[in-house]
Amino acid sequence: MHIPNGKPAVNGVSHTAYGKNVVAELKKEEKVEAAAVQKLSKEHDIVLKTFRILIADLCQQFGGGHPGGAIGMAAIGVALWKYVMRYAPHTPDYFNRDRFVLSNDMTLDQLKSYHSERVDALCPGHPEIEHEGIEVTTGPLGQGVANAVGLAMATKNLQATYNTPDYDVVSNHTWCMIGDACLQEGVALEAISYAGHLKLNNLTIIYDNNQVTCDGSVDLTNTEDVNAKMRACNWNVIDIEDGCFDIEALVDALNQARASTEKPTFINVRTVIGLGSKVAGEAAAHGAAFGTDDVANMKKVYKFNPEEHFVIGEEVREFFREIPDRGQELVKSWEKKVQDYESAYPELGAEFRRRREGRLPESWKDLIPSSFPDKPVPSRASSGQVFNPIAQACNSFMVGTADLSPSVNMIWKGKVDFQHPDLKTQCGSVGNYSGRYIHYGIREHAMAAISNGLAAYAPNTIIPVTSSFFMFYLYAAPAVRMGALQHLQVIHVATHDSIGTGEDGPTHQPIELANLYRAMPNILYIRPGDSEEVAGAWTVAIEAKNTPSIISTSRQALPQLSQTRRDMVVKGAYVLEEVEDADITLIGVGAELSFAMNVAKALQEKNIKARVVSFPSWRLFENQSLEYKRDVLRRHRFPAVVIEPYAANGWERYASAGINMKSFGHSLPCKAAYKLFGFETEPMTEKISAYLEKLKIDPILRNEWVEL
Amino acid sequence: MHIPNGKPAVNGVSHTAYGKNVVAELKKEEKVEAAAVQKLSKEHDIVLKTFRILIADLCQQFGGGHPGGAIGMAAIGVALWKYVMRYAPHTPDYFNRDRFVLSNDMTLDQLKSYHSERVDALCPGHPEIEHEGIEVTTGPLGQGVANAVGLAMATKNLQATYNTPDYDVVSNHTWCMIGDACLQEGVALEAISYAGHLKLNNLTIIYDNNQVTCDGSVDLTNTEDVNAKMRACNWNVIDIEDGCFDIEALVDALNQARASTEKPTFINVRTVIGLGSKVAGEAAAHGAAFGTDDVANMKKVYKFNPEEHFVIGEEVREFFREIPDRGQELVKSWEKKVQDYESAYPELGAEFRRRREGRLPESWKDLIPSSFPDKPVPSRASSGQVFNPIAQACNSFMVGTADLSPSVNMIWKGKVDFQHPDLKTQCGSVGNYSGRYIHYGIREHAMAAISNGLAAYAPNTIIPVTSSFFMFYLYAAPAVRMGALQHLQVIHVATHDSIGTGEDGPTHQPIELANLYRAMPNILYIRPGDSEEVAGAWTVAIEAKNTPSIISTSRQALPQLSQTRRDMVVKGAYVLEEVEDADITLIGVGAELSFAMNVAKALQEKNIKARVVSFPSWRLFENQSLEYKRDVLRRHRFPAVVIEPYAANGWERYASAGINMKSFGHSLPCKAAYKLFGFETEPMTEKISAYLEKLKIDPILRNEWVEL
Repeated sequence: MHIPNGKPAVNGVSHTAYGKNVVAELKKEEKVEAAAVQKLSKEHDIVLKTFRILIADLCQQFGGGHPGGAIGMAAIGVALWKYVMRYAPHTPDYFNRDRFVLSNDMTLDQLKSYHSERVDALCPGHPEIEHEGIEVTTGPLGQGVANAVGLAMATKNLQATYNTPDYDVVSNHTWCMIGDACLQEGVALEAISYAGHLKLNNLTIIYDNNQVTCDGSVDLTNTEDVNAKMRACNWNVIDIEDGCFDIEALVDALNQARASTEKPTFINVRTVIGLGSKVAGEAAAHGAAFGTDDVANMKKVYKFNPEEHFVIGEEVREFFREIPDRGQELVKSWEKKVQDYESAYPELGAEFRRRREGRLPESWKDLIPSSFPDKPVPSRASSGQVFNPIAQACNSFMVGTADLSPSVNMIWKGKVDFQHPDLKTQCGSVGNYSGRYIHYGIREHAMAAISNGLAAYAPNTIIPVTSSFFMFYLYAAPAVRMGALQHLQVIHVATHDSIGTGEDGPTHQPIELANLYRAMPNILYIRPGDSEEVAGAWTVAIEAKNTPSIISTSRQALPQLSQTRRDMVVKGAYVLEEVEDADITLIGVGAELSFAMNVAKALQEKNIKARVVSFPSWRLFENQSLEYKRDVLRRHRFPAVVIEPYAANGWERYASAGINMKSFGHSLPCKAAYKLFGFETEPMTEKISAYLEKLKIDPILRNEWVEL
Repeated sequence: MHIPNGKPAVNGVSHTAYGKNVVAELKKEEKVEAAAVQKLSKEHDIVLKTFRILIADLCQQFGGGHPGGAIGMAAIGVALWKYVMRYAPHTPDYFNRDRFVLSNDMTLDQLKSYHSERVDALCPGHPEIEHEGIEVTTGPLGQGVANAVGLAMATKNLQATYNTPDYDVVSNHTWCMIGDACLQEGVALEAISYAGHLKLNNLTIIYDNNQVTCDGSVDLTNTEDVNAKMRACNWNVIDIEDGCFDIEALVDALNQARASTEKPTFINVRTVIGLGSKVAGEAAAHGAAFGTDDVANMKKVYKFNPEEHFVIGEEVREFFREIPDRGQELVKSWEKKVQDYESAYPELGAEFRRRREGRLPESWKDLIPSSFPDKPVPSRASSGQVFNPIAQACNSFMVGTADLSPSVNMIWKGKVDFQHPDLKTQCGSVGNYSGRYIHYGIREHAMAAISNGLAAYAPNTIIPVTSSFFMFYLYAAPAVRMGALQHLQVIHVATHDSIGTGEDGPTHQPIELANLYRAMPNILYIRPGDSEEVAGAWTVAIEAKNTPSIISTSRQALPQLSQTRRDMVVKGAYVLEEVEDADITLIGVGAELSFAMNVAKALQEKNIKARVVSFPSWRLFENQSLEYKRDVLRRHRFPAVVIEPYAANGWERYASAGINMKSFGHSLPCKAAYKLFGFETEPMTEKISAYLEKLKIDPILRNEWVEL
């Protein structure tokens, strides 16, 4: 028997051998009953069989889904949902419930069958309806692991903030089920390393170790010793030898995980994909229904009637019947505890309630400076000026950075790091779990995905803020997208936008990334032009309760413009300078807004009258009325030129010509980079006046986009 | 002395203690000389000091850079470039040279000083000029590790293909220098795990373990046991206790790494950032110059003249003098070997020469089917039909997939997997290093970054192909971007585009991702509409020697259109159906091209004459002449409506109205998804005729983009 390199056998039995043994057992029909009875109570035996057959029936009816994994995981499901998870089916948003994240690749419908009260309400054919018990939408692999880390961090932070010696009003555990894929995806590996660092003992990963993916055996691509890797990352590791049947061992392991005092726990559960089917243990069991014959055969082997479908016997119903009541007991006792807590600690209690209701202290807006000194400031610095006092005063905000603290200006006075209290570095103690400044390390993708988890704990109870260079939001993009898709309020502070970033060069100049975020649904990409607009951008982002935002700022100092208005940022675009009998509209944006003003002035000397529009956000502008939009742009009357050192694509909606980037950037100091790409006042002025001349000669141009 | 949790001390001395000791030593001026002499030959001592001072001078002159890391790594540099690396400064493109990838965060100029012949030519102020000796552009952290894995895989594949028992014409090693950041970034973790799986014994990572990043001590974010983690991933691990001075130990370790027979090697080199400066061992040493005083002090301590800058003494020049000649000897002897090899194996020799010249066999185009059966086929299947015979016949192609073999149709007849020959799975042996089908596992980001490394080995010697669902090219995007930036020919096969992907739902429906790739410079995003256009797309991609491509295909079957032309794909867009006295232009794209044809037909019944344009690629279209573009679009004459279930942004350049996606998609079977979002013929026909009516009433609309 071959034991793949690097993968130690469990008690001397390799996974391959285990799989073959289990499958061989099951293939000999007469042995099945004996084997089951040997290992299982009769009760568990029938429950597992019922589930496995239900899943096979379900996928058969859909003609698809991921039956193999779901069937292999039936015992884990029973252990978790019957014996360990603290949840309340009738109060799915019970605040202190255990969180469960399903991060691997399978049909969500399996989950429904774990909820006893829903067994009758099985809804085949509607996998798009998300179940109430599901904390986060996963799907793109690896995201769920990082989400679970965020959920566990949320618990830690709320515990440290609100629990008292006599009242533990927050005490939930987070369980995350993963497959082989999640242990390969970078975002999960980042999050695993970080969770170990934080010693999140309230987090458990349950690894459905079936050693099969779409392409076949995991050995084709991964032969590492996963347990040793997890241990190296500061995780507890528990092996479950027989995850197909051994519910008792599973329950023990899960309880042990909940009791862990020092580390997160990794339960490596050996399972067989598609157990009981003819394709058991094979890639074919992963992503397709088994076929009618195979399902019928499964039923015969299990002594079910092959002619009947979706059968749930009375004993199975009985098995789960207690769960809803048990859940309501949990809710009642927690509500009582919170009531007592509010009496004992009225101030803390009131704040805890406000946080649970997702509200900020009403005074947060007063903390924004009412005006700014008239001197050039990088908008990343303005961003800190605006937001840091709010972050200091409002403990809903948890503010993180991917190792760019010196660049992103997000440190408020007296900030405390979110860290395990025992952590000591060269500089001594550095934080505790009530801290709200998060050093994510150089893990941009995990930062965004973990933030989704922080936000998903309860609506707006925590408002996570991330920060990095804008370019690195390409690393984070899959997670930013998932936040938008799930309507999670996460605020991303992206500095060093456009080409003014300087010597770091084209690898750090995000000239095409705004195109992604301007096209992505349900996210606000905002480029404020000076401190006043930065104030507006933060106000919009903080008020967007169901939408993530990206506040995109400059590395270099920007002049303060007297015409900018914070209250107009929410409109997406507004007229900065109106002129009578205009010849042209100039559109300026963000770090280069002043360029448009300068060009307008220079055009005036050539007797060309230019109106100027400030355009911080497409999405916000699209939300305005047609009348407002026409009033700002007046495209039927004037040609319009946009000035922005990004790829133009999409500006054609608002302008007829553009001075934009047609290539990657270049490693040069800020001013030199602008010069190289033609963003100085004089060449821009020349180009624009030449464009107006050309329009007179070639009227076709009026219907075409012109790159200047 | 605190030893951070999880990080074992080396020989009982923690990193913190090591750093403090070294710094303390150096701070006592009188001890420096003694300490140096104790550990170093006099020769090495003066070389290291010269380098450290040069770097400090350099950064001081720039007023920036990353001096700390560079100074800490001086001894590694000497060990590698003087004693171990096989390279030829005067023949930088020597085919069999060792490859060196600098993946961590520091000024590239340091490298120049490692090249003895360039010491005189130090070019401060021009960090943008890439040095000939640099194999890949890094910068975004983690990419370099994956690039290095690709370079090492390239060597393995060429060795297995061309070496004979008597001639090892390919034998180079790949060295990759990393910092703390690379061990946190997901893309590097994916690549590390995969390199261990492949047993790439020709790859060495040199970890500049200085325990400092921008935010401060690495302990703030990472307390894992990195050596144990690397061992769990099947790597050899070698510790270097004193990486600041112990050149002998470094040379031993590097030689040991080159001699490894079974595994890649990880050399954990303990260094002190900014050694000799006042900020030694601190974050302040990371990303800023030290300041005049500190540099002057360094010089005093090292017994250099503080008034002199960029001093390189004769003994240092002497130390490196032999390197260029040694390099030319290497080149000459390799060229002789290849000459003999070509005589002994004329066929293999000719092929090896063709590969080195980056040419394909001239007959490759003949392998493309000259026509296709007139039946509906998913374009992902057409893609396989077109490309698989080419991949089979031309061994330049290395074709990988991120665990989606059953979906991407990239398996050719008789394909052999790229695997270590000893790998055994449940199904026995599965491949060897001459294999060209790569199971990357569920590691999309590493797949793309490794492919950049494969392509960077030598121009077009290997043409890497990646494949996955289009949506997952968001995971891979940072690496795809680096390929575009470096002009590397990598072909990405992205299936399941637009919303026809079905039940996987909005997390798998890439409705905004094309906006990114259409805006990204130097990459061809191509959506072919049927098999004929697929043939055209592959032809364009294979002929684009300096540009990556994305061939974007459908999951669902597409009808074959009689009007499509493979030879027109290279134009980006072309008229599919011309009509006289047209009322409107319809633009169709990719999987929905036939929708435009159907709508044109339906409009005809309403007496509306529609011309139809097929538009597979914006970038290719932009490359055409103004005349051609006007001829295709005729925007001054007709309104134009684009039909594409992506976010519209950018289509405004080519159309006046669009039927596009305004939200994320939905989990539904293909047809139902199209129906939900209004992409059936009837509603589209209605919308378009209503639009034409509105245009008559409200002429302002002619200058505005209209969402239909």
